[in-house]
Formats: sequence, C-alpha cells, structure tokens
Amino acid sequence: MTTAPSDPVAAVGVASQVVLSVDAMGGDKGPATVVAGLARFLADEPTARVILHGPEDQLTPMLAKRRIAGQVTVRHAKDIVAMKDKPSHVLRHGKDTSMWSAIEAVRNAEASVCISCGNTGALMAISMLRLRKADGVNRPAIACLWPSRNPAGFNIMLDAGADIRADQDDLLTYALMGASYARNGMGIVRPRVGLLNVGVEEHKGRAELKVAHELIGRAAPKGDFDYVGFVEGGDLPSARVDVIVTDGFTGNVALKTGEGTANLISELLKQAFNNSILSKFAALLAMTSLGRLRKRIDPRRVNGGVFLGLNKTVVKSHGGADATGVAAALHLAYRLGKSGFSDKLAARVATAVALAQDAHQEGVRPKTDAEDEQEQ
Amino acid sequence: MTTAPSDPVAAVGVASQVVLSVDAMGGDKGPATVVAGLARFLADEPTARVILHGPEDQLTPMLAKRRIAGQVTVRHAKDIVAMKDKPSHVLRHGKDTSMWSAIEAVRNAEASVCISCGNTGALMAISMLRLRKADGVNRPAIACLWPSRNPAGFNIMLDAGADIRADQDDLLTYALMGASYARNGMGIVRPRVGLLNVGVEEHKGRAELKVAHELIGRAAPKGDFDYVGFVEGGDLPSARVDVIVTDGFTGNVALKTGEGTANLISELLKQAFNNSILSKFAALLAMTSLGRLRKRIDPRRVNGGVFLGLNKTVVKSHGGADATGVAAALHLAYRLGKSGFSDKLAARVATAVALAQDAHQEGVRPKTDAEDEQEQ
Repeated sequence: MTTAPSDPVAAVGVASQVVLSVDAMGGDKGPATVVAGLARFLADEPTARVILHGPEDQLTPMLAKRRIAGQVTVRHAKDIVAMKDKPSHVLRHGKDTSMWSAIEAVRNAEASVCISCGNTGALMAISMLRLRKADGVNRPAIACLWPSRNPAGFNIMLDAGADIRADQDDLLTYALMGASYARNGMGIVRPRVGLLNVGVEEHKGRAELKVAHELIGRAAPKGDFDYVGFVEGGDLPSARVDVIVTDGFTGNVALKTGEGTANLISELLKQAFNNSILSKFAALLAMTSLGRLRKRIDPRRVNGGVFLGLNKTVVKSHGGADATGVAAALHLAYRLGKSGFSDKLAARVATAVALAQDAHQEGVRPKTDAEDEQEQ
Repeated sequence: MTTAPSDPVAAVGVASQVVLSVDAMGGDKGPATVVAGLARFLADEPTARVILHGPEDQLTPMLAKRRIAGQVTVRHAKDIVAMKDKPSHVLRHGKDTSMWSAIEAVRNAEASVCISCGNTGALMAISMLRLRKADGVNRPAIACLWPSRNPAGFNIMLDAGADIRADQDDLLTYALMGASYARNGMGIVRPRVGLLNVGVEEHKGRAELKVAHELIGRAAPKGDFDYVGFVEGGDLPSARVDVIVTDGFTGNVALKTGEGTANLISELLKQAFNNSILSKFAALLAMTSLGRLRKRIDPRRVNGGVFLGLNKTVVKSHGGADATGVAAALHLAYRLGKSGFSDKLAARVATAVALAQDAHQEGVRPKTDAEDEQEQ
C-alpha cells in the first residue's frame, strides 16, 4: 500500500467525516470516467474525503488535472478485475486488485462505504469473503432504485442480480432488508412491500413464491411495513408499492429491460425532434420541460445498487456508467455513509431472522397444488 | 350454437377468404371495446370475415350500431371466462363460454385464427386440450413483439408467459419456433436468435441456460438461423438480435416491465408538455414528430401474443387492450391467417424435434460446475 505522507484522509480524521473507498478500475469506460465522476461529486460535497484505489501512475495525473488531489488519496493497486474474470478466479488471485483494496479499506474501517463500477459477481464474492454476511442472511441482495410515480420519485427493487437464485426464506429476508433501506435510506416511515410475480392472483406463480407470499404477509406487522401482495412487472414504477422483492435473475432482467426501454425511447425522442425544422424549433421551446423529464427518466440518475445483507455497505455502480452515473453512485454512497445505514440494517436483519423463525414455527408450508402446471 | 340463416361467413366460403374467430368477452374493458376494435380492423380489411363469440343479446345491437353486422356472425355463448377463473375450473365447467366456443371454431376449421383478450392461463389450457400441442412440443410458448432498433421495428420474444417453467429442451424448441415465426410472420430470411441471461459471458446464469446455449448453437446451422449467444434485458430492443428466447416467468416480467416503463415515460411526456404555455406551444409545433414517436412506442400497437407450438394459431390480446389494441391483435391474426402460418410452423417443429434428438445423441450435458453458486 502506498499512501502519501500528507494523507488528506488521515489529516481530517473527525468523527462526522464521511470517507468513501472508491475502486477506480474495472468500469467499461476506464478510470478517467471514475475520476471525472469524483470531481462532480466533490464539487457538490466538498467536505467528503475519498480513498481511490488503482495504479498510482495512472490516477495521480488524473486527480491533478481535475484539481481534486487535496480531497482524494490514491492507494496503489497494480491489478484490475476484468468484466470477464470469474469470481472464483478473483477470490484466489485478486488480492492485488483495486477492487480488493477498495473493500479492504471498508473492512479496516478507514472508509464507511465502498463503491465500484466493476464486475458484479467478483465484487459480491470479495464482499462476502472480506465483509461477511450479516448474521442470519443466506443470500445478500443488490437493491436498486427504480423511477416511479411515488412522491419520492423512486421505488426500490431487490435482488437486482447478486444471486440468480432465491428461495422463500431469502425472499422474506429481502422484504425486511428492502423495507429497512426504504425507511433509513429514503425516509419512508412505513414502506409498502410487494412480491414480483406473473399475476396478482394468489394461485399464480412458482411454488416458492406462494410460500414467500404467506411468510412476508405474516412478517409485515412486526416488521413495520405493509405487504401489498403480488405485483407484476408493470408495477415496478407504480405508486401502490415502495419495495419490490424478487430473485436476482428476474430482477436483473427486469432492471436491464427497464433501462433498455428508457434508452430506446430517449433515442427515438431525439430523432423525433430532429425530424423537421418545426420540431427543432419545438425542441428549443420545450427545452426546460424536456430537461426536467430527461433528468427524471435518465438511468444514470438512479445509478448505484446497494449490497444488502453484509456487515458493511458496498455500492455497485453500473459498469457502463459515465461521469454523471458515477457521481450519482457516489452521492448515494455518501448519503448512506452519513446515515450510519450498515448498523441500522444489521439490527433489522436480526429481527428478520427472528421473524422467519417465528413463521416457520407457525408451520407455513408450500400448499400441495397439483394444478400448478396448468395454472401458469 | 346459434347462427343466423343468412350467415355471411358461410355465404363467402371462398378459399382465399380469411375468417377470424373472435372471443368478444373476458377483456378488462368488455365486449363493446372488442366490437369497436373489430370495426377499426374491418375498415382496413373489408374482405375479412369474423365469427364473434358471446351473449347474442349483447353483441347483436353493438354490431348494428357499428354497422359491421354484414361481416360478422355472432355465435351465441352464454358464459364468460373471468380473469380470476382457474384454468382447471374452466377446463371442467367452461364448455359454454365464449372462449371455448372461439377455439372450437378454429378446431372445426370454420376459422383459421382464434383471438381472445381473456384469461391467458385459461386460453392456453383450452387451446392445449382442444387444439393439441404440435408433435414433439412439450411446452407451447407465447411469442410477443417488442419495439426495436431493427429496420422491421420489432423483435420477437418468447415465452411471454404461457408457462412459468422452461427446461433446456423447451428453450431449444422456442428458438426454432421463434425463428420460424420471424421468417414466416415477419419476412426475416435468416433470423438472429439470442438466449436471455443475466450476462453475455458463457459462465454466467442458471445450469439449464448453459445447456440450452450449447443446444441452440448446435441447432442453428440446420435450423436456418444465426445464434448470437446470450443476450441481456437491455438487448430486447437491440438491432443485434431478432428473436429473444427465455422462460415464461422471466419473459412475462420483462414484457410487463417494458410496457410499464413505456407507459410511465409517456405519462411524464404529457406532463412535461403541459408544464408551461411555452411547452404547450412546443407540443403543437412538434405534433407530427411526436405522433410518429407515440405510434412507435405505443404498447397497443404491438398488442397480440401468438401461441406457438399448437396445431392451430391462437392470438392472445392484452387483457387491458382498448379498441386500438384489439384492432392491432386482429391485424396480426389476419396476417398469420393469410400466410398459412400454422402449417409452416408444424413442419418447422418437426425439424426442431429431430434437431433436439440429434443434439442429445451427441451427448450435450450440463457441465459440472461447483462454482455456480459464486458466479452469480
């Protein structure tokens, strides 16, 4: 580890100081984009401090160019986790990577939140190994924000892709963790939780969803949230729910589908406004309103998945994030760091485990339903 | 069955005549919306003929009001399949429903394509019972159209929700059926097929997806399509693929997520243009371009899932479809009826079965991969 003698992080070691640990490498657009995002973030939060992990010879000139060297300490890491690297390979050979170093700084309590744009599977694997799952959590989840019709402007969806599987107990844990994130991270006092399915009817869906439906319903009163039952893909932006629970395979497909749809429409809008001299003139006149709209539906604005169910907080930025997206992820990490979210979540997870055990003792079991096959 | 003596369908019994069998009941908006959609469709296709199934006393005045009684025969059915009805219940007690009657008319070769806005599970269950699965098909699928960057303007996705499960062999069958639909229904000579996953890397995803990946890759040369490998949710509107294959749970969530996102953006656009007098003026100026855009991203325009893998063709319109949506489904059904799609697909499915058997004989098996759990 290489730290400059005049380490700005060490110098400003006050209790209220939020320090972020940022992996500079591994994003699709390279470290210059991460540093550009850092500069935008620090312009808004000048008291924040950052430990930036990656090859020192590359990063130091970038920080100088952006004039943020005073707020950012470079921690040298010679290796990079590539998008194609298998998590198992990274676990064995990745100790000199910027990603590993970034997580290590959170583990050592030098920083309160870790941020990376890199390989999600590797980031989760290292996080699980070094930060450990919170007591009673079998599968940690990634929670993402979804533009919605709610006054807050966002709903929370989890798991967005930490694990391709989730059984009924995992789905219950996700419900409680998601509710906690909504309460502590977004200020929603009594979050409404829904379970994603192919229909809102109780007889539809996979067997584990029917059991999770009962488990979550029973846990709601003690868990300080309202359970609205099954929701569908069309409810992700709905105002009737705040937290949508699903397995990581479905959640990942839904997330990328929503982003892809928004990007397509955004492209088509641009084309529409370039169609004629009249529509160009119209675009000029509409600029303010469309700017507001663009800001609202811009996927970069809601960039940053949060790993829930670990002993520390890790924010996964989208691999293809540009400087705006990176800055959004940093802002999210900063808010979470300031709120002391990790500790609050740990308490909530302990409750979740107790609730799950309660439910099991009360004998919630899958219904025998020979008609499952037909009832889609 | 009640048919008027002057049955227009019987009267125009020429070979090139396309007759559609339409379930008037079971949609969220009731039969008046279906009849309104019929009127729009028949204005474009005046030589088409329709058998309309439902309560005669309700339907006859509606047809008279729309002045389409000359092209539409009412076939009386007193019962209605409700959205909440379990498919198993409908199979036992649904013989007097409009949905059953609509499928029966296709089975009896009185009409070439059946269309319904009703309960998807019930429609699939009755279709499977009365029309039978095509030889060698284990799970029929619903194929839907997705707005895309391709010159055709659409990609095909299946299964959009016929069955919540699909194993590796089903996914191979979907690939071949989807390619056939793209070729025969949309004129794409050599369709490009992709398999939906949480990443494009070969080591990612569920075990059955890894096997399907190999099976589809091997089948591509003989199946007259190109296999582009794994695709992600963001590729649903992509120009690098024409047919996206997935299980019906994931496909249904993706479909509803895409629709929900498009609807949200459309609402926000309307709000944006009502924000100020300037933007209202802008909207007036931009009307032509935005109209084109609205038409392109309007979910009603791509309304109509096609059941693939049965011996006859069934088009499932969205339950919430309005008259525009119903008309779109009818146009789709009419194109398929004209093209003789059912027979062409049956031939293709036979090939699919042979190809799957070939692949199995060549010994494609799931890889043992202890790292599955970690590799998300």
